[in-house]
Amino acid sequence: MPSTSRYPVPALEDLPGDLRARILEVQEKAGFIPNVFLTLAHRPDEFRAFFTYHDALMEKEGGLSKAEREMIVVATSAANDCPYCIVAHGALLRIYAKNPLIADQVAANYRKADITPRQRAMLDFAMKVCLDSRAVDDADYAALRAHGFSDEDAWDIAAITALFGLSNRMANATSMRPNDEFYLMGRVPRQKA
Amino acid sequence: MPSTSRYPVPALEDLPGDLRARILEVQEKAGFIPNVFLTLAHRPDEFRAFFTYHDALMEKEGGLSKAEREMIVVATSAANDCPYCIVAHGALLRIYAKNPLIADQVAANYRKADITPRQRAMLDFAMKVCLDSRAVDDADYAALRAHGFSDEDAWDIAAITALFGLSNRMANATSMRPNDEFYLMGRVPRQKA
Amino acid sequence: MPSTSRYPVPALEDLPGDLRARILEVQEKAGFIPNVFLTLAHRPDEFRAFFTYHDALMEKEGGLSKAEREMIVVATSAANDCPYCIVAHGALLRIYAKNPLIADQVAANYRKADITPRQRAMLDFAMKVCLDSRAVDDADYAALRAHGFSDEDAWDIAAITALFGLSNRMANATSMRPNDEFYLMGRVPRQKA
Amino acid sequence: MPSTSRYPVPALEDLPGDLRARILEVQEKAGFIPNVFLTLAHRPDEFRAFFTYHDALMEKEGGLSKAEREMIVVATSAANDCPYCIVAHGALLRIYAKNPLIADQVAANYRKADITPRQRAMLDFAMKVCLDSRAVDDADYAALRAHGFSDEDAWDIAAITALFGLSNRMANATSMRPNDEFYLMGRVPRQKA
Amino acid sequence: MPSTSRYPVPALEDLPGDLRARILEVQEKAGFIPNVFLTLAHRPDEFRAFFTYHDALMEKEGGLSKAEREMIVVATSAANDCPYCIVAHGALLRIYAKNPLIADQVAANYRKADITPRQRAMLDFAMKVCLDSRAVDDADYAALRAHGFSDEDAWDIAAITALFGLSNRMANATSMRPNDEFYLMGRVPRQKA
Amino acid sequence: MPSTSRYPVPALEDLPGDLRARILEVQEKAGFIPNVFLTLAHRPDEFRAFFTYHDALMEKEGGLSKAEREMIVVATSAANDCPYCIVAHGALLRIYAKNPLIADQVAANYRKADITPRQRAMLDFAMKVCLDSRAVDDADYAALRAHGFSDEDAWDIAAITALFGLSNRMANATSMRPNDEFYLMGRVPRQKA
Repeated sequence: MPSTSRYPVPALEDLPGDLRARILEVQEKAGFIPNVFLTLAHRPDEFRAFFTYHDALMEKEGGLSKAEREMIVVATSAANDCPYCIVAHGALLRIYAKNPLIADQVAANYRKADITPRQRAMLDFAMKVCLDSRAVDDADYAALRAHGFSDEDAWDIAAITALFGLSNRMANATSMRPNDEFYLMGRVPRQKA
Repeated sequence: MPSTSRYPVPALEDLPGDLRARILEVQEKAGFIPNVFLTLAHRPDEFRAFFTYHDALMEKEGGLSKAEREMIVVATSAANDCPYCIVAHGALLRIYAKNPLIADQVAANYRKADITPRQRAMLDFAMKVCLDSRAVDDADYAALRAHGFSDEDAWDIAAITALFGLSNRMANATSMRPNDEFYLMGRVPRQKA
Repeated sequence: MPSTSRYPVPALEDLPGDLRARILEVQEKAGFIPNVFLTLAHRPDEFRAFFTYHDALMEKEGGLSKAEREMIVVATSAANDCPYCIVAHGALLRIYAKNPLIADQVAANYRKADITPRQRAMLDFAMKVCLDSRAVDDADYAALRAHGFSDEDAWDIAAITALFGLSNRMANATSMRPNDEFYLMGRVPRQKA
Repeated sequence: MPSTSRYPVPALEDLPGDLRARILEVQEKAGFIPNVFLTLAHRPDEFRAFFTYHDALMEKEGGLSKAEREMIVVATSAANDCPYCIVAHGALLRIYAKNPLIADQVAANYRKADITPRQRAMLDFAMKVCLDSRAVDDADYAALRAHGFSDEDAWDIAAITALFGLSNRMANATSMRPNDEFYLMGRVPRQKA
Repeated sequence: MPSTSRYPVPALEDLPGDLRARILEVQEKAGFIPNVFLTLAHRPDEFRAFFTYHDALMEKEGGLSKAEREMIVVATSAANDCPYCIVAHGALLRIYAKNPLIADQVAANYRKADITPRQRAMLDFAMKVCLDSRAVDDADYAALRAHGFSDEDAWDIAAITALFGLSNRMANATSMRPNDEFYLMGRVPRQKA
Repeated sequence: MPSTSRYPVPALEDLPGDLRARILEVQEKAGFIPNVFLTLAHRPDEFRAFFTYHDALMEKEGGLSKAEREMIVVATSAANDCPYCIVAHGALLRIYAKNPLIADQVAANYRKADITPRQRAMLDFAMKVCLDSRAVDDADYAALRAHGFSDEDAWDIAAITALFGLSNRMANATSMRPNDEFYLMGRVPRQKA
């Protein structure tokens, strides 16, 4: 059986109750346990911090749709060459966008993807934060505003990019493996998350 | 209807007979016309040269399997961020390797993919040719030989990398669009090429 | 008065109790409120997640000393050109290492700094995670083990690098300003944190 | 005697008739056999494909002069650090442009060369295709049009850049050696090709 | 005792008179001998040439203040990761600017430093010369003129950047060590150079 | 008439005597005045410093031949894309090496040039100093020693690389033009410097 990651995976019954509950909840919903949960469970405190951060950014209200947030994750993960996040969040992007093609397009080259000019501006900002944050300045915020993004939206884009930059580095450093189930999710009609 | 590329697409009936024959043959086999045929048909002489080169490298006998040749194409196209070739040749790689996961893995980060050490050495050489050919030297050939590759195999790897570097640049410069049909090919059991 | 960051800073009395308590505690200890607390307080959920993550990595037991953890932060922040984290964590590094020179050395070029070969290996691994996580592999873990680092230490190094990569991107994107107080901390005898 | 390349060179009498005819023709015209012919003759099918492609782009009618096409080749080959193509096509550029200085200027830094603003725009587009084709977009085509280039000219520039990117990678991977004769061609009055 | 550099340091009494005089003069003024004098004294002719060049650029009249010249040195040295020059010239920058924070800010990321728009333009030009001189053109000179810089000022900026690029390479190649005295200079009120 | 550089060129009769003498001496020897003399004459103090530095490194005794020193200059200038120095010092390299091909080979890609393994190690060290001096360490010196270079030779290589890095940046920033006379020097038998 292929490994989950380079690190040992604790048995569910040995985990603190809150981790076990979260893992069982996602398993119930998805039908399998995404490897990021099993990998980070090796470090319960970091597991809690990561998913608190994740939920604060990915499940909040705001100017970005769920699909747009996943677009940022996929573009960031492609820039960092992180297989786990490209494959897992690619699945989520297909599902939220109800578009079986969009994740592969954004992962390959977002500049050529079937996205709106507003989404292109969103991803240009995300890539600046991802690859050249030292040079982010007023002009970058102005470019977002020209497409109707508020400064709160800008924070969201930057923070999602930054959080998944963290996630990409942990997944690459631990050789976290994408679950086989993700690859096909959202690609065929009626496929459920 | 989404465009094939930035350039006009000639009507099949206006094409020289040899191009039309080749296009009808691939349509017969695949069930659709891959956009690279329609895009390059804008320039019949270049169409002929490209597919002659393609066939000389991808349909020859030799030490590399068909799946391995497509792995080189996918890794090269990922390094060049070329959506057309990642998507189209990703489909071929899944089919030849009879592996629904391998193309997304190689496109994301071949260093983390489920490939053999021999294939890893093959792709390391390909990436040196793709990204830093100026520094290719004896040590690179020696690394291939240590995995059983002959100098003829090395030529094949280099030439496939070089040809698809050409293809990636043309596809990106013309904004060639991957056909929708490619995305799902080889992902589900019994899916045919 | 120079700004804290590009975003508005909430009044202490308007903050949720747990944030206010944490901020007052750090103010009590340091004599001032570091701007990262005021900046992130704009987003209480992210504030909580960030500092939970921070504490899980920076205040845990383990094979890395407090000074070594701050060394990783300073080297990472220098690689990302993040003034806030170079200046603020440079102060912490001087204090924990009881060495007034070390932070400027690590920020300028850790390869030339007065550190042990073990610390050099630690920072080489951190920089691989920071700048090229796609290529982290067995050889990188082996290089750490050769200096006595366990795989748990390797996780710590990777995670600290990844978390401060997040922090660097948020600080650069928001133009977070280092407090004036940090610059001199730990530089003169008896200077207190 | 210095080698032609890393690969064996077939005897002329062992070559297929069409290759031998082409080689004798170029020898007749140039007074020597350029090593690219001898190197590629190791693979007759690839030899045919390459020179078909070459002729389709370099000997066609169109908006680019012969000297301008060679300028693109020299700039591309300099970007890829390919000695064979810099030296061999530098000779052709000098001859077609009737300018003994232009090839060395373009190889060193085309931005400082004695070329027209139109040629500068042509080479800027070529370098985008060569080094960053992922980001080629409408603005790049518009910049060409502002200098009077048609979209067909743009295709020519992109295709020449892409073909010689292939050639550069093969020449560097095989350590193809520029013939001594090329170095002086076109440098002194009455020097013939 | 930590070494001055990788190379042997001559005894003062063995030095040519002009070198000894210059070294004693700087020792008299600074209270210690900066290691660049001791390192370069290994090669008296190069010592003379370097300091002649230094004085011609750093002690001349002109449109740049002494603090601005040191800003260029610090930004250049940060771009080249040269600890000696960051630390030593950071001290001079603090003293000339009468600003204890400015050197650390410029070394970390000049785009976020407390500098004027004119100084930002000055450093943007310096960084173009430092990192991408091949592409310096009329637009770069125009950007300087828009901030009131003359072409003579542009020469000064370029030349200071170029000279300290030389100095950075020599200091890094010889592992020249910043003297401990520099770190605190200009950081506390009444601190003297 | 093409310009010497972006800056005004003083009349010979207006120059300080020592500059005029040096310029007349080189004109006597070469038959023309290389533009670097005329360009730097705009700043007499910098002219003196530059040529003092130049002579200290290029006309000293030592373990490097004159041809080897010019090889370093050409490789450095190629890495920095500096047309003036590639063309002017390429001429000197041809003459000192009595080899009409070597300069174009080194400028194009020194890894493929007809040089000895010792010269290859010399240029590898030079390129590390030129492009990544931050990482020069013991292993780089050891690699030189393995080819018989002393630490004094290492200093010479580093210093020549550093000085011509300065020269490349000044020549590129001022758009200094190579004199037409350089291009053919050393290419044909009996051509004199």
